[in-house]
Amino acid sequence: MADRLTTEARDAALKDMPGWSVVADRDAVTRTFEFRNFQEAFGWMTRIALVAEKLDHHPEWFNVYKTVTVTLSTHDAGGVTDLDIEMAKKMDRIFGA
Amino acid sequence: MADRLTTEARDAALKDMPGWSVVADRDAVTRTFEFRNFQEAFGWMTRIALVAEKLDHHPEWFNVYKTVTVTLSTHDAGGVTDLDIEMAKKMDRIFGA
Repeated sequence: MADRLTTEARDAALKDMPGWSVVADRDAVTRTFEFRNFQEAFGWMTRIALVAEKLDHHPEWFNVYKTVTVTLSTHDAGGVTDLDIEMAKKMDRIFGA
Repeated sequence: MADRLTTEARDAALKDMPGWSVVADRDAVTRTFEFRNFQEAFGWMTRIALVAEKLDHHPEWFNVYKTVTVTLSTHDAGGVTDLDIEMAKKMDRIFGA
């Protein structure tokens, strides 16, 4: 199982992840992705869903029309792990930014 | 454009929609759907996404693993319309409950 990152390691990782930030009062990272429309937003979500299922690591996410807000944390570890950083980077890459 | 339902009409419609309720402090209806796992949750979301795109009426929804919480309201009408009731019933039917 992935180990929870120290606060220092988590914050160091975030420095290379523009748009991501730490959730207030919680050891989790979040980013809001804006698309051109619902088709593009849900298309992206579908690609991420396949990645999530393959990694067996699933996001919390909220979608309304062209906006998707994602929160990542590893439940079993009680906080942010390398798996969350990996997932965040995949999300960014598939988003194209 | 769909007209906003009166409170009476909205509440009357909700009587036939077990699981749905009115959101506190907002003219919107909500239901939480529970699935067996992420595959089933996201599979259902994908079917609903196609319906939403066809109707040009999109939900607000939050997913974490096997749970999806949906909120429906018609932005342009400033509240719940027949379109939301139609979408809610389609969601129920595709969910199978």
